[in-house]
Amino acid sequence: MINEKLPKIWYGGDYNPEQWEADTWPEDDRMFKLAGIDVATINVFSWALSQPNEDTYDFAWLDATIDRLHANGVYVCLATSTGAHPAWMAKRYPEVTRVDYHGRKRKFGGRHNSCPNSPVFRRYSRLIAGKLAERYKDHPAILVWHVSNEYGGYCYCDNCAAAFRSWLERRYGSLDALNRAWNTRFWGHTFYEWDEIVPPNELSEEWGGSNTNFQGMSLDYRRFQSESLLDCYKLEYDEIKKHTPHLPVTTNLMGLYPELDYFAWAKHLDVVSWDNYPSLTTPVSLTAMTHDLMRGLKQGQPFMLMEQTPSQQNWQAYNSLKRPGVMRLWSYQAVARGADTVLFFQLRRSVGACEKYHGAVIEHVGHEHTRVFRETAALGAELQALSDRLLDARSAAKVAIVFDWENRWAVELSSGPTVGLNYVNEVHKYYDALFKLRIPTDMVSVEADLSGYDIVIAPVLYMVKPGFAQKAEAFAAAGGTFVTTFFSGIVNENDLVTLGGYPGELRKLLGIWAEEIDALFPDQSNRIVVKGEQGVLKGTYACGLLCDLIRAEGAEVVAEYGSDFYKGMPALTVNRFGAGQAWYVATSPDAAFMQDFLARLTAEKGIQPLVEAPEGLEATVRVKDGQRYLFLLNHLAEPATAETGAAGVDLLTGQAVSGAVTVPGRGVAIIAQPG
Amino acid sequence: MINEKLPKIWYGGDYNPEQWEADTWPEDDRMFKLAGIDVATINVFSWALSQPNEDTYDFAWLDATIDRLHANGVYVCLATSTGAHPAWMAKRYPEVTRVDYHGRKRKFGGRHNSCPNSPVFRRYSRLIAGKLAERYKDHPAILVWHVSNEYGGYCYCDNCAAAFRSWLERRYGSLDALNRAWNTRFWGHTFYEWDEIVPPNELSEEWGGSNTNFQGMSLDYRRFQSESLLDCYKLEYDEIKKHTPHLPVTTNLMGLYPELDYFAWAKHLDVVSWDNYPSLTTPVSLTAMTHDLMRGLKQGQPFMLMEQTPSQQNWQAYNSLKRPGVMRLWSYQAVARGADTVLFFQLRRSVGACEKYHGAVIEHVGHEHTRVFRETAALGAELQALSDRLLDARSAAKVAIVFDWENRWAVELSSGPTVGLNYVNEVHKYYDALFKLRIPTDMVSVEADLSGYDIVIAPVLYMVKPGFAQKAEAFAAAGGTFVTTFFSGIVNENDLVTLGGYPGELRKLLGIWAEEIDALFPDQSNRIVVKGEQGVLKGTYACGLLCDLIRAEGAEVVAEYGSDFYKGMPALTVNRFGAGQAWYVATSPDAAFMQDFLARLTAEKGIQPLVEAPEGLEATVRVKDGQRYLFLLNHLAEPATAETGAAGVDLLTGQAVSGAVTVPGRGVAIIAQPG
Amino acid sequence: MINEKLPKIWYGGDYNPEQWEADTWPEDDRMFKLAGIDVATINVFSWALSQPNEDTYDFAWLDATIDRLHANGVYVCLATSTGAHPAWMAKRYPEVTRVDYHGRKRKFGGRHNSCPNSPVFRRYSRLIAGKLAERYKDHPAILVWHVSNEYGGYCYCDNCAAAFRSWLERRYGSLDALNRAWNTRFWGHTFYEWDEIVPPNELSEEWGGSNTNFQGMSLDYRRFQSESLLDCYKLEYDEIKKHTPHLPVTTNLMGLYPELDYFAWAKHLDVVSWDNYPSLTTPVSLTAMTHDLMRGLKQGQPFMLMEQTPSQQNWQAYNSLKRPGVMRLWSYQAVARGADTVLFFQLRRSVGACEKYHGAVIEHVGHEHTRVFRETAALGAELQALSDRLLDARSAAKVAIVFDWENRWAVELSSGPTVGLNYVNEVHKYYDALFKLRIPTDMVSVEADLSGYDIVIAPVLYMVKPGFAQKAEAFAAAGGTFVTTFFSGIVNENDLVTLGGYPGELRKLLGIWAEEIDALFPDQSNRIVVKGEQGVLKGTYACGLLCDLIRAEGAEVVAEYGSDFYKGMPALTVNRFGAGQAWYVATSPDAAFMQDFLARLTAEKGIQPLVEAPEGLEATVRVKDGQRYLFLLNHLAEPATAETGAAGVDLLTGQAVSGAVTVPGRGVAIIAQPG
Repeated sequence: MINEKLPKIWYGGDYNPEQWEADTWPEDDRMFKLAGIDVATINVFSWALSQPNEDTYDFAWLDATIDRLHANGVYVCLATSTGAHPAWMAKRYPEVTRVDYHGRKRKFGGRHNSCPNSPVFRRYSRLIAGKLAERYKDHPAILVWHVSNEYGGYCYCDNCAAAFRSWLERRYGSLDALNRAWNTRFWGHTFYEWDEIVPPNELSEEWGGSNTNFQGMSLDYRRFQSESLLDCYKLEYDEIKKHTPHLPVTTNLMGLYPELDYFAWAKHLDVVSWDNYPSLTTPVSLTAMTHDLMRGLKQGQPFMLMEQTPSQQNWQAYNSLKRPGVMRLWSYQAVARGADTVLFFQLRRSVGACEKYHGAVIEHVGHEHTRVFRETAALGAELQALSDRLLDARSAAKVAIVFDWENRWAVELSSGPTVGLNYVNEVHKYYDALFKLRIPTDMVSVEADLSGYDIVIAPVLYMVKPGFAQKAEAFAAAGGTFVTTFFSGIVNENDLVTLGGYPGELRKLLGIWAEEIDALFPDQSNRIVVKGEQGVLKGTYACGLLCDLIRAEGAEVVAEYGSDFYKGMPALTVNRFGAGQAWYVATSPDAAFMQDFLARLTAEKGIQPLVEAPEGLEATVRVKDGQRYLFLLNHLAEPATAETGAAGVDLLTGQAVSGAVTVPGRGVAIIAQPG
Repeated sequence: MINEKLPKIWYGGDYNPEQWEADTWPEDDRMFKLAGIDVATINVFSWALSQPNEDTYDFAWLDATIDRLHANGVYVCLATSTGAHPAWMAKRYPEVTRVDYHGRKRKFGGRHNSCPNSPVFRRYSRLIAGKLAERYKDHPAILVWHVSNEYGGYCYCDNCAAAFRSWLERRYGSLDALNRAWNTRFWGHTFYEWDEIVPPNELSEEWGGSNTNFQGMSLDYRRFQSESLLDCYKLEYDEIKKHTPHLPVTTNLMGLYPELDYFAWAKHLDVVSWDNYPSLTTPVSLTAMTHDLMRGLKQGQPFMLMEQTPSQQNWQAYNSLKRPGVMRLWSYQAVARGADTVLFFQLRRSVGACEKYHGAVIEHVGHEHTRVFRETAALGAELQALSDRLLDARSAAKVAIVFDWENRWAVELSSGPTVGLNYVNEVHKYYDALFKLRIPTDMVSVEADLSGYDIVIAPVLYMVKPGFAQKAEAFAAAGGTFVTTFFSGIVNENDLVTLGGYPGELRKLLGIWAEEIDALFPDQSNRIVVKGEQGVLKGTYACGLLCDLIRAEGAEVVAEYGSDFYKGMPALTVNRFGAGQAWYVATSPDAAFMQDFLARLTAEKGIQPLVEAPEGLEATVRVKDGQRYLFLLNHLAEPATAETGAAGVDLLTGQAVSGAVTVPGRGVAIIAQPG
Repeated sequence: MINEKLPKIWYGGDYNPEQWEADTWPEDDRMFKLAGIDVATINVFSWALSQPNEDTYDFAWLDATIDRLHANGVYVCLATSTGAHPAWMAKRYPEVTRVDYHGRKRKFGGRHNSCPNSPVFRRYSRLIAGKLAERYKDHPAILVWHVSNEYGGYCYCDNCAAAFRSWLERRYGSLDALNRAWNTRFWGHTFYEWDEIVPPNELSEEWGGSNTNFQGMSLDYRRFQSESLLDCYKLEYDEIKKHTPHLPVTTNLMGLYPELDYFAWAKHLDVVSWDNYPSLTTPVSLTAMTHDLMRGLKQGQPFMLMEQTPSQQNWQAYNSLKRPGVMRLWSYQAVARGADTVLFFQLRRSVGACEKYHGAVIEHVGHEHTRVFRETAALGAELQALSDRLLDARSAAKVAIVFDWENRWAVELSSGPTVGLNYVNEVHKYYDALFKLRIPTDMVSVEADLSGYDIVIAPVLYMVKPGFAQKAEAFAAAGGTFVTTFFSGIVNENDLVTLGGYPGELRKLLGIWAEEIDALFPDQSNRIVVKGEQGVLKGTYACGLLCDLIRAEGAEVVAEYGSDFYKGMPALTVNRFGAGQAWYVATSPDAAFMQDFLARLTAEKGIQPLVEAPEGLEATVRVKDGQRYLFLLNHLAEPATAETGAAGVDLLTGQAVSGAVTVPGRGVAIIAQPG
């Protein structure tokens, strides 16, 4: 449990009373009660308010706010306010602002705007975190700490350049090792002094965001910046823990955000929290995958849904309203996949600046007689009733998909073979097929213990880090089914090619050699022709993007290409390996293949879909204390019926159910069943 | 009359003899005569020529030019030459060049290139304007002053930053007031010293031209830059007026140019002038609307058509020729809508640099035997014959559309609810319907006196400035029909939301509450279903972009949405208010709705179309001394017949006409009728 | 012959052993032998390796490499390594890095990164070239020098600004002359001191790469930068020639690369070499045209194919594999059009950095059992067998197409009449028609001697340089057929319009006057209606882009426009001129017109297609010592048969052939016939 003070699914969100006159506060208190809100995240962007100049701190407004909330039964998620530095700091110490990718020194503005290697920023952010922790360490309202906000963005200033060189020196020990790792003899880039190295941006080695002359350098700069920001977090974390070792600390992550290695970050978070902002056009399975990834960051530990909008965003191109019921539906989707909180951005809609058209629990009209408020209040009542039933419940997946941020960076920095390759898309293709089959799946890191799974899928595992190949071999040898794809096993952790034939370190496990890689234009495709039948996997499917020209070296050829000069060459192989097997998908298949292929693999392992139901009805499960909670989430506008098998009780209605359960359009059922 | 020295529609244009050898000048004189040209705009870009260094002025060339023109019967529109500073000035005083939106300090180059807050630029531009005015104050050729040229563009340099802070101090009085107006507690932006504020551009708060973190700040920067450039204009204006209080002063505007608040500028222009450059694909109704807007800048006072091309532009992507007759047709379109001059850019086509493929009266071939010259000369003869008949004639519109540049900025700076909302497009939808109905319309500012109109339409009046709501209420109470739309009444002049329910200050007048705003994707639409019949307004229409979810609070629901979860909610309402009524169009309808809706409203007020005619035949009217001049402009390639009603005389043919009048393809008729 | 030491078609490519551990080298040697490789290009990017700091040079590694290659029968193309400066140089002398088009000072990174006007860069690049030449002047392995690599890119730094001013002073003599040439009185740009002039980039006169306010200035900056880079080349060239006057010197060009005037460069190359990187979607006729252009740079002298990929690129969007046979086919295409070498980038595929997915003879797998290696080795054996048969053979074209880089710059810098005009595309339209007719064509400069040709085509010869019009007239007067098009003859070498009517200096020769130029939108077209029949040229064709409205002044009207207001005006004219004729194509026709028009012209001159064959079979010819080598290149996947006429021997099979010759899919035949 995140904090036992509040043993239920927390309900509330971001609250900025400092932006309002005092006469609104009693109305806030009244409406929070009406809505069943019991948690407020405060002080997210109040640094300039609490520290009006270098020498002065004034927390009186915060004291009053926390006391008021507490007096009204609302607990506090207390932010450290360091997500944006004060204007006076940028004026007095220009070093705190960043230099951007284009090489431009920024001036004061925006948020997430501090150079992570600025000594001034580090000194003052640490200082205020410490002061807050010391001040409020004993306040009964505080449930959890929220460090800064949505960390992100890179800096390319001179402070960062110097820190990067030190970081490299620690990583490589010598310039000789660095020159080898980056293959600097290419294009005459040999470095003889550390200070010859400059950050890779549009003034030096990169352009367009993801193009680089030197993948090794660019990869290291991403590692370095992710770590630099993490260091800022850790400085605050450590200050806080000095005073409140008993309180959990988090910072709100952003799901599939590309720039930070969240698996590395999660090691330093007591609890993962994240902000979920799907658009009307986001596939529900992508949201589901992101929840599962956030849950996977700390090996299945429940997480906090820190932000979502009750109605609409402001920063998308077309900010459609969440249709009636959808806010509740998506809230339960988060809970179904591991969230133990349902929090909103924000509780009262702001009156000015760029987020004033972002939905809120209390809208500009200011009263409770709105659709949005009614839906919010109804959900608040439900969560109250659910009490602690679901808290700390875990996933029980037998299938895992490997996800790796450093691999993602390497794939996106690659020059060739195609600009069409998007790592997240390829991962999502596998996830989506399992989602539609309603087979629970964990998203795991390359460092994960694989031994508890029956099937492990590592799509486009381009970069194979030390030890992973051995782990995958052990997993297969012990009876597991390992799956990987084209453009895997190509490079090591420095983006240097593993010589001797692709897929490099995975070649033995897979029993194949990929001789060439053909890149298809977007309007081109090939076919996958299955030899014979493999359960539901049979006949012909479409494929495209990349086609490996592979040669089986021990592996069985399950399917072949249907056209082009490599017609008849293997498109899908399986290699028996010890008690298990290793599959290689040599191209990027269509959704029909994905569905049939994963049905085939899971059937072989005896992994059954949770329920039978029409597409659009999502199912997943959490387990706890021998109890199994089956979530049925109907994303269709019409009612849908699922065959649930065992009897149980619907937690939301209190009714006993068994067999076929009909869920209303955009409705939810949570069926407690014996585990 | 702009200047009684030349009591006819002035005819001529920009003339740059200083770019040519002396032997071309007699040929110019000869051809000007052939073409009936009687006005030349000179000295537009001659600063570097007249002031070769900081201490030297040499106007001998200008003396000779003016004398020569005058001797040949050509009057002068005399420019002050400050639209581009000399190279020596940029070298000696780098402060005169701008810092651009990307934060880059510019070097010498281009035009409209001076920082408006550069003391050096201000000193020298004022000085040369004064010298010119003093020198030519008694020259009989001078008709009008032309300050600088096509003012535009913003600067973000340190001089501007300092001036912005002073401007803010004058506007807000205190940082406390500024912090409230900009809602700076959002994202911790509280300012404690004036010099913590930096101009909002890509180095601070903005990106991509129209995105900002702080709408209030960005809005103020636009106001400030528009005023800064206006201050430059006023410095020259005042210098000129010292010497020639009797001569009118203008600067050439650019129609719908976004960056300057032309209503504020027009107060300081003795006569409005503007440059009209439609493309082959510009709707004729958009050109018409722009003429009407330019006329509206000074409450209907006739304006100068300062520039148009006789044949083609150079700076469009595809510079098609004006088809035979079109130059004449569009010239009369300007006159029909309030122009008392027809001027070209330019009289002789330049030989080098970027405008040499811009059409001119005298083409590169150099003689008069060209289609373009023949058409020009024919029009010259016609204008000669028209004499002063049309001068000073005014519009007699009973319908007004409100247009506001600050509102436009605010709409375009808004983050959410949709990127698809374009203020000018929405205004043009209403204008276009009236244009097609052939109902004269004035374009007016939010400061306008509305009492003379029967119908006032304020599309997307997002920002409601102090006093406007009261004025609209008084207008309706007195019997007027007021119309506004979705996304109106939302914010005050600082872009702070008016709390208590949209449309804020307009809510009482409209009798509705807009609870939510749904944004539709470009491929989505909804339907407007009219309840019963409202004259021609009946049945079902399409709509999209934004759909307000409104609740009638006294207003009558005239139409409802036809689909989605808000099917059956009001899409069009009317509120009886005193002797008048107030309409609310809750979404962005299709053209068919527009046409029927405005036909319905105007019919009710007894406002009749000027004529009945096929689409493509434009009609408008000017009135003067009890005389009514009905313009029929046929934009079709074929002849078209209009039912004109009363008898009259066609000024261009001298023939008496009555009833049905047939206008040739791309032809024009100007029918004088009793008023 | 490039170098008589190796009297055969050289075979090999770029080789970077310094990027590899010593244990790979014996394997390289072994595989080079297997592949028949006899030339390696080395030391291309090794400056930092050979000169680790300002005072130290160490060529030991290079000594060993050259000796090893030589011992294994591999000759050396020796690069000077100055294509990228060392990191230490950029750190110590920031002046060596460039300022980019956006005005940004670059830091160390990339390649082709040196400011061409940096004294430091010039000193050290010259020094190392001299040291290399002195050191290896007597080494028997060296065949040819390769200066730097793929020169390109412009710089806008202060050193360049100063050098530009000196260059302008030399070119124009006085500011007065410069002001006239650039027409600086436009927009008040008169310069009074040389240092008022700044390089034209996004901080001054240009934007978006090819837009400018002052064409004359921008044109001169391109000339200046092209010459500045050429000066860098010449400095190295001269140093090398001091030591090895007997060895040829080249630098590798890039075909249609826009930024350098390769005709000017070629004067300073002993042999032209270039890098050929077509994509799967590049028309084969465009590759052919580029080969012909490279051959034309030195008046038909055979050139070196310096780089091509054996399989795939890495830097294209979609890097498809060369299909089986295509590498051989495209290699012979180069030879067919004048190449006396077939060289690859590169011999061993790199292990890290941005070119590791660029194909190579030795792939990452490292052994010879790959498709790519097998094809490479087979071609090596063939080239061995061909021996010196084809060396030094020349083209025998009777048709020439004029190509001019300065004209290209001027066309692309033009503001108006259309953004749709692409000089290379228009040239390629004419080339492509001749290619499909299988009529050999030379690509020549405006300085070329035209007297040997029957037909000379100068598409879009917008800029007519001094003397060209007279040369074209003499050519026609002597019986030649001259062809030019719309948008020709408009300006002089300074981009100043030739007054008195388009096409200016060409007007007399063509017997027409172009009164106006209409620009069509991309979705618009007109028609060309041929009057009567002109051989195969008859009926109606489509046209678009630009339509000149011309008037025949002596020329015969061969075809007219079919629609719009200029229907019936001339679209195609021919003017009898002395013993010859001059054609004017007034618009941009479709491919059908092109084919028929050129068939008509060539038939009249008795120029016959080389062979009759299905489209897709390319034919060309080289001649030498009274022998004629007919190349048949089948770009189709299926066999194709050509009617070859005279009997001969297929050099590749040794078989006698005559009449119909069938070439396999993607196959090649080289038929030696009596000349």
